[in-house]
Amino acid sequence: MLKKMLHNVRETTPLIHNITNYVTVNDCANALLACGGSPIMADDPDDAEEITAICGGLNLNLGTLNVRTIPAMFAAGKKAAELNHPIVLDPVGAGASSLRTDTAARLLDSLKITAVRGNISEVKTLALGSGSTKGVDADVADAITAETLAQTADFARKFAAKSNAIIIITGAIDIVADADRTYCIYNGNPMMSKVTGTGCMLSAITAAYLTANPSTPLEASAAAVISMGLCGELAFHRLTKKEGNATYRNYIIDEIYHLDEETLEGGARYELH
Amino acid sequence: MLKKMLHNVRETTPLIHNITNYVTVNDCANALLACGGSPIMADDPDDAEEITAICGGLNLNLGTLNVRTIPAMFAAGKKAAELNHPIVLDPVGAGASSLRTDTAARLLDSLKITAVRGNISEVKTLALGSGSTKGVDADVADAITAETLAQTADFARKFAAKSNAIIIITGAIDIVADADRTYCIYNGNPMMSKVTGTGCMLSAITAAYLTANPSTPLEASAAAVISMGLCGELAFHRLTKKEGNATYRNYIIDEIYHLDEETLEGGARYELH
Amino acid sequence: MLKKMLHNVRETTPLIHNITNYVTVNDCANALLACGGSPIMADDPDDAEEITAICGGLNLNLGTLNVRTIPAMFAAGKKAAELNHPIVLDPVGAGASSLRTDTAARLLDSLKITAVRGNISEVKTLALGSGSTKGVDADVADAITAETLAQTADFARKFAAKSNAIIIITGAIDIVADADRTYCIYNGNPMMSKVTGTGCMLSAITAAYLTANPSTPLEASAAAVISMGLCGELAFHRLTKKEGNATYRNYIIDEIYHLDEETLEGGARYELH
Repeated sequence: MLKKMLHNVRETTPLIHNITNYVTVNDCANALLACGGSPIMADDPDDAEEITAICGGLNLNLGTLNVRTIPAMFAAGKKAAELNHPIVLDPVGAGASSLRTDTAARLLDSLKITAVRGNISEVKTLALGSGSTKGVDADVADAITAETLAQTADFARKFAAKSNAIIIITGAIDIVADADRTYCIYNGNPMMSKVTGTGCMLSAITAAYLTANPSTPLEASAAAVISMGLCGELAFHRLTKKEGNATYRNYIIDEIYHLDEETLEGGARYELH
Repeated sequence: MLKKMLHNVRETTPLIHNITNYVTVNDCANALLACGGSPIMADDPDDAEEITAICGGLNLNLGTLNVRTIPAMFAAGKKAAELNHPIVLDPVGAGASSLRTDTAARLLDSLKITAVRGNISEVKTLALGSGSTKGVDADVADAITAETLAQTADFARKFAAKSNAIIIITGAIDIVADADRTYCIYNGNPMMSKVTGTGCMLSAITAAYLTANPSTPLEASAAAVISMGLCGELAFHRLTKKEGNATYRNYIIDEIYHLDEETLEGGARYELH
Repeated sequence: MLKKMLHNVRETTPLIHNITNYVTVNDCANALLACGGSPIMADDPDDAEEITAICGGLNLNLGTLNVRTIPAMFAAGKKAAELNHPIVLDPVGAGASSLRTDTAARLLDSLKITAVRGNISEVKTLALGSGSTKGVDADVADAITAETLAQTADFARKFAAKSNAIIIITGAIDIVADADRTYCIYNGNPMMSKVTGTGCMLSAITAAYLTANPSTPLEASAAAVISMGLCGELAFHRLTKKEGNATYRNYIIDEIYHLDEETLEGGARYELH
């Protein structure tokens, strides 16, 4: 299954429209190229709809959210729905400010979102209208651990049912759920949190996997999350003593570039419930 | 000739004002520093004219184009013309949306553009008012190959004559043309298309070469294009098995940093017609 | 002293709100993570105040200044003052345009700025209302050398007294001054000027050091400056023959990531007057 998801990305070179923050946008572009997709970024309300029309999928990321580009997100999202393009929503900082919380809620309500990708605090905010987001990182009290896993998976399935979107919660353990099934994914490395944008890159890659695998969105999302975590592991093992988070960033993208189907299948660590 | 072009860049440290997209802007800045120039970025209409006035050249790039900064492009371009500064226009995504297509056309019509740098789809759009731009990459049907080279070179010369600008079309083979002469450049590596922003970096570097070599704009442009392609080759040969597009990005800029006159002259592969 | 400053950053993970330029913002984020802090970026006037409220410190950087985000700087700065958060002002390009010069002056006048970090031309502009900023680099005529050091240190202390802020002037020799005392810091490497954003990264890191060490702002600022210079030295010594400014950028951040208290204390080269 995982093999086929990756295969289809590399085979079809999905073109992804990203309306995203200016902090990690370059890494999102290179990560998309690395996984086999192709990036385009356009955030002007006058430009976004037409750019969406030539793409295959849409990635909406709320980092450095500003009022100028919010209308572009809605216009692009509406056009994407018309064209049956998958849409990923990354509610960066939902819970940290009302602009982000409200915009994330409005996007989820009014657009046909295929998948939401955030940390537990952001996703809880979106689901419950409250949360304890500490900046762009999840609150420690909310962390997904072995103890809270079953409960969080249950929460994710219920939110998936309610929102009709796949819910992706990333953390020490990652959860990918639709209304019925949950992937609990153990790939990844704690040092990934010391590289800005690993979450943003994953959201962009998820859009590529969803676009290339339109009939199996849950599997496509799980494959994207597993690929990112696995590449984080492989990149970590390449690090020598003097290398830190800047080199790690490059190695992660390098691993995405070289990831092949056998490595993905063999390195995947997950349970499907 | 090539030696002198590079020599003059390193000797004069041209300061280049870039109004460019937020995806690849950091790489443009580091590429400018690497080649011997110096970057400054200012995109506010209230700021652009004064910043242009302290610079030596201007680079206008339409990636992530937004209506807020378009007036800054015109203001900076007008001031640059007054001061006889060279202007490079990089019509990223022309053909992909009307905002980009129209803005590129208006900039070319109303400013004294020294050189246009784009892929074949973007440049065709600008020349003919139509094209088949697939995102920010050229359409396969438009690719420059040995078969279409003579025809594309002819097109470039005619467009150069009409626009009074040097026309730079990059692809598997690069073309640099004025109304009379054409450089067909064979340097480069296909993997450069897997790094976001190699085209943007080239446009920025071209502005530096043009600024440092005001009396020989065609040669300066050709030298910039050759240098980028050659550095792409040299960087590719440094890549080890595990290294992918992120490391390649760094190696390309590193090679630009270390490029010396002998390596440029010795590694250049081109024909002048 | 230096050991404790770094220790407190790593111990408390200060969350820093950055309103900064889109050229070097990714490096600022990774540098903050590397030093032990955590970054968040929000530049919309509707978002900035709330984001500041969940952070510990604020970093205002005037690169790619635009009129849309200036109100966000004032709103964030006012909220930061209410909460007793330290504020760093990096007046990028002050002296190069009136928008930047005026905005820097207004921010310094109306906010409770804890530290100003710039090159000598920018800081002179801010202090004297004039200067000779060449783009984002200091004018050669203004360079801090052994000959001009005593005079520049005197200038810095007077400006610190007048502005009630710590004055950080970076160059071949770095100066960190309050009204009474001056650190003259000899760490650093000339090649740092070939990497875009080393100054911006330092400003972000300084905000983290100030936030983690609220009772000793002069020492915190000096430690931040020393750490950056020292990491520039250590990174330079790692460079092999083929490695240029792109790799150097990564190595600098890697060194910040691995910097430990003993290395900082042992490698520091400064005088306190």
